[in-house]
Amino acid sequence: MKEYKVLEIKQSVFSSNDREAERLRGELKEKGVFLLNLMSSPGSGKTTTLKRTIAALKDELRIGVMEADIDSEVDAKAISETGVKAIQLHTGGMCHLDADMTRQGLEGLDTGDVDLAILENVGNLVCPAEFDTGASKNAMILSVPEGHDKPLKYPLMFSIVDVVLINKMDVLPYFDFDLEKCREYVHMRNPKAQVIPICAKTGEGMEDWYQWLRDQVKNWKEN
Amino acid sequence: MKEYKVLEIKQSVFSSNDREAERLRGELKEKGVFLLNLMSSPGSGKTTTLKRTIAALKDELRIGVMEADIDSEVDAKAISETGVKAIQLHTGGMCHLDADMTRQGLEGLDTGDVDLAILENVGNLVCPAEFDTGASKNAMILSVPEGHDKPLKYPLMFSIVDVVLINKMDVLPYFDFDLEKCREYVHMRNPKAQVIPICAKTGEGMEDWYQWLRDQVKNWKEN
Repeated sequence: MKEYKVLEIKQSVFSSNDREAERLRGELKEKGVFLLNLMSSPGSGKTTTLKRTIAALKDELRIGVMEADIDSEVDAKAISETGVKAIQLHTGGMCHLDADMTRQGLEGLDTGDVDLAILENVGNLVCPAEFDTGASKNAMILSVPEGHDKPLKYPLMFSIVDVVLINKMDVLPYFDFDLEKCREYVHMRNPKAQVIPICAKTGEGMEDWYQWLRDQVKNWKEN
Repeated sequence: MKEYKVLEIKQSVFSSNDREAERLRGELKEKGVFLLNLMSSPGSGKTTTLKRTIAALKDELRIGVMEADIDSEVDAKAISETGVKAIQLHTGGMCHLDADMTRQGLEGLDTGDVDLAILENVGNLVCPAEFDTGASKNAMILSVPEGHDKPLKYPLMFSIVDVVLINKMDVLPYFDFDLEKCREYVHMRNPKAQVIPICAKTGEGMEDWYQWLRDQVKNWKEN
């Protein structure tokens, strides 16, 4: 039997996504649910990063994961195998999730017993950046093979994120990726963004990421 | 002095993109200009592949390149250094190009003396697949670090392309990428798509790609 649901998301009817996003954020705050919106290009390692993060934090936080994809169930299957609550969201061809679509996902997931809800957004550096999902914080992954120039080409994405994980640090020797230049470009777009180099496969740097996440969830619940 | 122009693309006013795309394709056919629409995720190696392709083919074909990005000029600069005509298109935040935007780009490029015009589309596996640009053929690059499951998650993109280049084959030993599975998934979406493994950095497999491109341009001009 499948350990996760598949939900076909409906298109939103609300005229102001920003208002819907603020409303959702307020409700989540009241319920003590921290919502992380995780974005990246296709294949940057979102699911692998999540699997390792769940294994490290599932004894201290109650976690629920929404996997958004245009099609397939491979990610929800992978996440459900970690033992946490997972739901697959199908966006019906849409390239992003807005606040109302995220709300449908949260209802499908049922966050009554969740401290940390994670939305793995559609793999795309453009459109997801344009829609506030109502998340408490925005995170993104840039992987070494993609190159350090991405903040130059996808300005909006880098300007709206609170933390940038630089993933696949294990293959740094095989690519022309300049970590310091990358940091500089990220901060050009967004001086406040945290930059954390990691390798979700080997575990390198992951403790810094866990600590960032722990701090954010704690702040959200207490302040 | 810059060797390329930067063009700020305007939003289209046409109601039917499909009709505009067919009209553009017809005009290009008449003029003997083959238009290749090259798509991929961010950082898959579109520009590196183009640079090597231009070096190999510029003595037999007159090439012009349109580099579409939301921001930055790094790609047009890189292409103009190869000695062919290049133009940077800025999409004004848009995640794709449609036929009218492509037409603006072609006019900016001036294709009077061009056999092969190449549009490097915005790095995105979702939206560019939804808009016919009027191209003669659609090509895409999937790079090894992105993973072989991408045809499962981005069905439309894989269903509309004529050729899939599997790039960064040099790093295959460092990633869990199954080339045969990838081929199988691509053909599940699109039985007619050619799959050509390449490495734009080392040149591996590039001759097959050049031959595909030569054949297409020849067919376009003759039939």
